[in-house]
Amino acid sequence: MASGKSKANVLLVGGGSVGAIAALNLECGGLAAVTIVCRSNYSVVSKNGYSIKSCDHGAIDSFRPTNVVNTVPDVSDGPQFDYIVCVTKNVADVPPLLSELIRPAVVPGKTVIVLIQNGLNIEKPLIAEYPQNVVLSGVSMIGANEPSPGHVDQDFPDTLFVGAFDNPNMTPESQKAAAEDFVRRYSAGGKTQCSFDSNVGWTRWRKLVYNACLNSICAITGLDTGRLRLADGAVAGIVRPAMLEIVAAAKAAGHDLPATVVDDMIEMDPLDMYLPPSMLSDTRKGNYIEYENILGQPLAEGEKLGVPMPTLKVLYHLCQAIQWKNKELRGLLGRK
Amino acid sequence: MASGKSKANVLLVGGGSVGAIAALNLECGGLAAVTIVCRSNYSVVSKNGYSIKSCDHGAIDSFRPTNVVNTVPDVSDGPQFDYIVCVTKNVADVPPLLSELIRPAVVPGKTVIVLIQNGLNIEKPLIAEYPQNVVLSGVSMIGANEPSPGHVDQDFPDTLFVGAFDNPNMTPESQKAAAEDFVRRYSAGGKTQCSFDSNVGWTRWRKLVYNACLNSICAITGLDTGRLRLADGAVAGIVRPAMLEIVAAAKAAGHDLPATVVDDMIEMDPLDMYLPPSMLSDTRKGNYIEYENILGQPLAEGEKLGVPMPTLKVLYHLCQAIQWKNKELRGLLGRK
Repeated sequence: MASGKSKANVLLVGGGSVGAIAALNLECGGLAAVTIVCRSNYSVVSKNGYSIKSCDHGAIDSFRPTNVVNTVPDVSDGPQFDYIVCVTKNVADVPPLLSELIRPAVVPGKTVIVLIQNGLNIEKPLIAEYPQNVVLSGVSMIGANEPSPGHVDQDFPDTLFVGAFDNPNMTPESQKAAAEDFVRRYSAGGKTQCSFDSNVGWTRWRKLVYNACLNSICAITGLDTGRLRLADGAVAGIVRPAMLEIVAAAKAAGHDLPATVVDDMIEMDPLDMYLPPSMLSDTRKGNYIEYENILGQPLAEGEKLGVPMPTLKVLYHLCQAIQWKNKELRGLLGRK
Repeated sequence: MASGKSKANVLLVGGGSVGAIAALNLECGGLAAVTIVCRSNYSVVSKNGYSIKSCDHGAIDSFRPTNVVNTVPDVSDGPQFDYIVCVTKNVADVPPLLSELIRPAVVPGKTVIVLIQNGLNIEKPLIAEYPQNVVLSGVSMIGANEPSPGHVDQDFPDTLFVGAFDNPNMTPESQKAAAEDFVRRYSAGGKTQCSFDSNVGWTRWRKLVYNACLNSICAITGLDTGRLRLADGAVAGIVRPAMLEIVAAAKAAGHDLPATVVDDMIEMDPLDMYLPPSMLSDTRKGNYIEYENILGQPLAEGEKLGVPMPTLKVLYHLCQAIQWKNKELRGLLGRK
């Protein structure tokens, strides 16, 4: 680990809009040097950097992270990273697995892995592969998109909650220290809200009230959150029952969510903004959806704890069928 | 009513592929003269008739029903009809209502109304509007489509079950006699299977095992029946549970379906034919779906009888949201 005031060496996997803002937050505080892994926008970003319009940072003509690369670096013959921050989509049922993707850059027993990703149990495959590494949870509320390669618009502030997933092979103190160090570096620029999260499970279950329900129902119906709230019977008939199932499962898992959480989540997106949640954006683009972590894992947890989840179960299998359709279209099934 | 050997005067509302084959079956037996109401294909059919390739009838260059019209005739100043046969889609939540559409042609206390349409309780609005008219149920198994206006391909035989819906204002005998007369006329050409149906409720609930479940799940997921059977977990996770809910609701309503019905319906469409059920065809074309009669009514009946239907309830509200989306796109909601 880099000492307190020296720059940490950070590998940021995922160079889209959320990754660009994360890189900016880390670099602007002076306590991190970011190597960002870009894919489709690599040629633009490596040449010109990002052009950013941000509610947190203002307008920036060109932000170029310390290094821009197009593949995860192999650290066996180069500098090692203190942190690997993953902001890619985490599609559990489509290869490559995240744990494989980052393998060339992981130093066992050293690199701290930060997952700024949605869903439940996403740390399990990482801890299984890298049992002596700290894995941190990042739950982000941010509104950002990349209308053209390298151009990033951030409409909603980046509010990031960072804590440690429980790795039973390591002491709670070392994991907490890693989380606090990351929060300090991410917050150093003073442009963003990044807080230490002492209860990762609670934070993740809370966000699932939105993600497992609104996100999946929007993806299935093709309606954005504003329209879903207007559509005949949708909130009372499916959104609210689904959310109550998540609240019940969270409670069974030991996480008491506030009584207002269901209404808070239903009303979170402004009615007149017609915001497409991430899985709806994905289905519209023909991309794979993160339904397994967002919907499948909370369903499995709830059912394991004896919580009836009839609504979530149907939504899960519908998402699974939609994913299958997309896999077939992309030739992933080996069928014509 | 026309006497036994004279031609019945039949108005056939709906001049698509199913209507064309129904008109052909009625006219080829010599016991009916058909006036067919066409919409989008009116100019072609009125000029050239239908060009038909049929597994029941063979190839027919030009079949022109006795009369081809483009609107429901007003019988107050013209010949009356013995039967009004409705083969249009029955979309209960989008105007015009069928009972309004056929009003100019209905003679109270005389015209027999035949509904060759899917779903439950479709007779209720008709009996409410025309309490002294017989309303017949037609449940059809047919595979037919109209690849271009006036060109009809029939791939699967027309098997039609006709019986009387229970109109409490009329004697069972008169209703049964009307059904038997219609069966006789429809069967007279000897080219098709048309049988008297002594238990309309049983027949309709049986078909709902397919329609409420496979049809709606295909429409929601975008998968045809062949692919849905292949998709990970879909049959075990949603199709079978949904079908068992329909079987339970049917039983509560007094209709014991055979033990094999679930597997029979799952396996009805050949795996390698990738058949889109009607609601999937509709969502692909951006048409309204018949989810209210096919899904909403059996759900309401089952819940009224105390049958738990958690799967059907979710499917219903998802279809309702999809219909709302389509209504908005078509400007039916009066919103921008």
